[in-house]
Amino acid sequence: MILERIKGTREIKELPPQELKALAQEIRTFLIRSISRTGGHLASNLGVVELTIALYRTLNLPEDKVIWDVGHQSYTHKILSGRMAEFEELRQYGGLSGFPKRKESPYDSFDTGHSSTSISAGLGMAQGRDIQGQNYKVVSVIGDGALTGGMAYEALNNAARMKKNFIIVLNDNKMSISENVGGMSRYLNGLRTGSGYNDLKKNVADTLDRIPLVGSAMIDKIKRTKNSIKQLFIPGMLFENMGITYLGPVDGHDIQALCKVLREAQKLDHAVLVHVITKKGKGYRPAERNPSYFHGVGPFDVETGRSAAEGDYPSYTEVFSRKMCQMGERYPKLVAVTAAMPDGTGLTAFGKRFPDRFFDVGIAEAHAVTSAAGMAASGLKPVVAVYSSFLQRGYDQVLHDVCIQNLPVLFAVDRAGLVGSDGETHQGIFDYSFLTSIPNMSVMAPKNLWELRAMLEFGMEYDRPLAIRYPRGQAYRGLKEFKQPIEYGKGEMLYGEADVALLAVGSMVSTGEHVREKLKSEGVSCSLANGRFVKPFDRELVDRLAEKHRLIVTMEENVLQGGYGLAVTAYIHEHFPQVKVLNIALPDAYVEHGNVSVLRKELRIDSDSIIKFMKDGGWL
Amino acid sequence: MILERIKGTREIKELPPQELKALAQEIRTFLIRSISRTGGHLASNLGVVELTIALYRTLNLPEDKVIWDVGHQSYTHKILSGRMAEFEELRQYGGLSGFPKRKESPYDSFDTGHSSTSISAGLGMAQGRDIQGQNYKVVSVIGDGALTGGMAYEALNNAARMKKNFIIVLNDNKMSISENVGGMSRYLNGLRTGSGYNDLKKNVADTLDRIPLVGSAMIDKIKRTKNSIKQLFIPGMLFENMGITYLGPVDGHDIQALCKVLREAQKLDHAVLVHVITKKGKGYRPAERNPSYFHGVGPFDVETGRSAAEGDYPSYTEVFSRKMCQMGERYPKLVAVTAAMPDGTGLTAFGKRFPDRFFDVGIAEAHAVTSAAGMAASGLKPVVAVYSSFLQRGYDQVLHDVCIQNLPVLFAVDRAGLVGSDGETHQGIFDYSFLTSIPNMSVMAPKNLWELRAMLEFGMEYDRPLAIRYPRGQAYRGLKEFKQPIEYGKGEMLYGEADVALLAVGSMVSTGEHVREKLKSEGVSCSLANGRFVKPFDRELVDRLAEKHRLIVTMEENVLQGGYGLAVTAYIHEHFPQVKVLNIALPDAYVEHGNVSVLRKELRIDSDSIIKFMKDGGWL
Repeated sequence: MILERIKGTREIKELPPQELKALAQEIRTFLIRSISRTGGHLASNLGVVELTIALYRTLNLPEDKVIWDVGHQSYTHKILSGRMAEFEELRQYGGLSGFPKRKESPYDSFDTGHSSTSISAGLGMAQGRDIQGQNYKVVSVIGDGALTGGMAYEALNNAARMKKNFIIVLNDNKMSISENVGGMSRYLNGLRTGSGYNDLKKNVADTLDRIPLVGSAMIDKIKRTKNSIKQLFIPGMLFENMGITYLGPVDGHDIQALCKVLREAQKLDHAVLVHVITKKGKGYRPAERNPSYFHGVGPFDVETGRSAAEGDYPSYTEVFSRKMCQMGERYPKLVAVTAAMPDGTGLTAFGKRFPDRFFDVGIAEAHAVTSAAGMAASGLKPVVAVYSSFLQRGYDQVLHDVCIQNLPVLFAVDRAGLVGSDGETHQGIFDYSFLTSIPNMSVMAPKNLWELRAMLEFGMEYDRPLAIRYPRGQAYRGLKEFKQPIEYGKGEMLYGEADVALLAVGSMVSTGEHVREKLKSEGVSCSLANGRFVKPFDRELVDRLAEKHRLIVTMEENVLQGGYGLAVTAYIHEHFPQVKVLNIALPDAYVEHGNVSVLRKELRIDSDSIIKFMKDGGWL
Repeated sequence: MILERIKGTREIKELPPQELKALAQEIRTFLIRSISRTGGHLASNLGVVELTIALYRTLNLPEDKVIWDVGHQSYTHKILSGRMAEFEELRQYGGLSGFPKRKESPYDSFDTGHSSTSISAGLGMAQGRDIQGQNYKVVSVIGDGALTGGMAYEALNNAARMKKNFIIVLNDNKMSISENVGGMSRYLNGLRTGSGYNDLKKNVADTLDRIPLVGSAMIDKIKRTKNSIKQLFIPGMLFENMGITYLGPVDGHDIQALCKVLREAQKLDHAVLVHVITKKGKGYRPAERNPSYFHGVGPFDVETGRSAAEGDYPSYTEVFSRKMCQMGERYPKLVAVTAAMPDGTGLTAFGKRFPDRFFDVGIAEAHAVTSAAGMAASGLKPVVAVYSSFLQRGYDQVLHDVCIQNLPVLFAVDRAGLVGSDGETHQGIFDYSFLTSIPNMSVMAPKNLWELRAMLEFGMEYDRPLAIRYPRGQAYRGLKEFKQPIEYGKGEMLYGEADVALLAVGSMVSTGEHVREKLKSEGVSCSLANGRFVKPFDRELVDRLAEKHRLIVTMEENVLQGGYGLAVTAYIHEHFPQVKVLNIALPDAYVEHGNVSVLRKELRIDSDSIIKFMKDGGWL
């Protein structure tokens, strides 16, 4: 095995060219086998094997810096920088992260996770390098999908000012997680099918000089703008217009061609974009055929590509997906908006059934939110389906474009709370905080799958901004018997007993159920209430609990600061100073990757930890 | 006066062409006189007088919809839609807003305030129109400065999908509030100096067809790509590349030409961008010469352009500005970043003194934050100076790119708290909430000008993410004698007495001082503490206060939810249940425009209201 011989970057650089293909093959085989066991991002990583090798051959790593946009395509990079053995524990608690992490390796120069940050970060590093008189190379590797994000454009707009080398590698696989949308995608498609990068530019310029221009009123104009023509004819004008040299397109699976163009790019004293065409899932037939499915997968069978059996019960996403289709029939004004996540948010089915009322705007959360506000202003009822951590990108738009005008946009906030193996960047543990402080916004969280349906129905009739947040994974099927109709601002009493009251919201209601059962078996009687509304919280419900209990335990899967518990506590302090309050929430810290049930234990929000904490702290 | 004859859109449409110039002149005269008395946005409004008239002549308002990006250029629009008489109360509490407001007039189709939202909102409205089978026109008017914002690009990228008419008017005055930066600006500059829009497109195509192509290896290639050349030669290719028809450039002060191109634009069945060249401050010499100064002004003398006397005392912005220059000498790694606000944030002086260490990134807060993260990762010490309400645009970047990696970026958060006459969209009343819930972030607020200096010094040595937030306007000069050295996480005891303790942060410390003095004169003794750190709040200080007082009053100029008071209250509830707590903070509501001192009274956070509230509520 060639891979075994590679101890560092020197061995990669010294590898004879004829062995490079074999190296790429070995890496692919390793990736497919390894991810089939652990799960992880497959398709994106198979696409950049050669590109990564070429970067290692042409750069001096880790002195030079590579910033991987999003970062889920950094597996080959992790293999080549000495972390191959750690793939057995990929994305597990305490194990290798699925994203670049500065804490993990000096080869990881910037942490990524969300899309479209790499050009900004790389530009900042290159500027820092120049100010400090240093000399390393900075390369930002960004996908064409990430290029639909506004941040990437803001950064391109600023890259034009660079007076020293700065390399942007556009990893163009024609996909985000799903297929790309919009004008930029169409434009790149034009480039892909155009001529190769090699000498075209120079040839065109020469040729234009040789065109004999015969008399015409327009000729003078053309002459005057000949330089413009020269420029304009060059592929990649959109980038060149913005002051960035364009090199490409180049075959992203041809290591020699990649090395050549990357070396050329390093010679320039300004910003340069290298357009690399890759194939998502390259080299593994099932992933090539269905790159969206193999974007992020659980364990699967290598032969068939089929995933190891998953739970039979539907996820919250699936519950949302079906309900949206149903409601689409009944509500002609219902429209759905997603930011490049039709599969992940469950909107694909709605989009197929109601194509005219479905909008995938690309990786563009800001635009998603504000265009939904525009649709609401025109009389429609938009549902924006988005992951909690990505809605952070639309925070100002929620506050400024939806809520000031009190527009009836419904946010279906998926992957809220702990999401598990994607780690720090993807945990949805801040939405209670950033959403509840926004005026006119209301925030709900369902305890189980039936309640999610009821909340969505409620949301259709509710005529102001509303967020419904629900976690990743299987929808809870317990507490089925509790189906009090949804009423604005009202929670739901589940078990009224004595002594201690558990007041939980969302996913923590089922945790509360477990706490209650366990304490009951120990002779402690617990009431359990479902808050339902995080904002506005149900004051009457709190009154009732406070009047009959000596301790109220608030429970939420969100950081403490700015969340549900503190608001409830302040209310109790004013009105029931004698009632003790214990806030169960997430600590003021980022939460790394790992299985959700492991993380819940580590963070002490599982039922056993909560009971132990109550006992140890003398709360019982 | 022509203006007096105009009662509605019909009169504007029926006005004979020869009277249009006079109308524009009357509007200008009115704007200059009116704003010279009330203050307001002058330069941007003088620039779009003709454009607004042309929109009124060519559209059917208010059935058709015009969305004004940012919205501070909507004064002529307000005049023509029947609100001229209300200009006497412009930007005053209860008076006319300086921005479009749906609540104010049916002619205001979408509320704006922050930059770069209009294409997203307009696209959403156009999509809503089409889904509902309606037929009105939608026009988004966006400045070239706003086009540096990523959201605008996200929206352009999506505009390509439009199958019906949607008009974007690019109001190109070569400026944001200050001068524009970046590749897009350079590109637009190229267009401006190019030929007019009228028939160039067709002529170029014809001419290219007539060019005799003589033998050359390249000729075939050129023939094959002739369509590309045709397209590429057309001005506005950057937009056409994205699937948007480009019309322009057209003289934005020629009403006839504007009407012609706007009528042409209405005929198209897809998205079209009309490039209009305007002059900021047009028609008023002082504003033409210094458009940045006349962007937003207080009352001024029409003859000289000089502003009515302002306070002699420096603003917090000026204190920051001077301190940055001083620190720039001592800290060679200090760099400063602004998003198109060098004047407003006070960084102009730093930029002049240290041009290589100063970055104005355009209206691009997301990029500003993440590029600062990149600079910090490379070893620099970046200060991002930004208005509180605009930092909302960088929320995810603070959380995801700065704080996960715990990078030493210092946020100088200006215009925090109530900002006054700009209203809902500009109040900086959410930053405690959205910043304190972010792990690794610390948040400070100074009580007076000396403390801001000390905090900035502290920030230079502090090696993790930090935000210092301070208000608009004159820096407080009281409490000068209290200068305890800054220590991480520690507040400052100002007056230790008995009975009631006031625990205030930032601007509310001086309010606390007034409350204390007034209560003292009535025989109630008050302690006063300066929290200094909103996060982490000083537990020891709270302990000391709780041990000696029966009531603690927390005071902050931020919404209650997610802020300082609730966190302190929850802590007190756990450790000192017998101590009462009163939270003085802003309500869960947007705050409209008006003089800050009026707003403070209305919102009951001024000293008299606080005392009255304490008395009426039986807190004393």
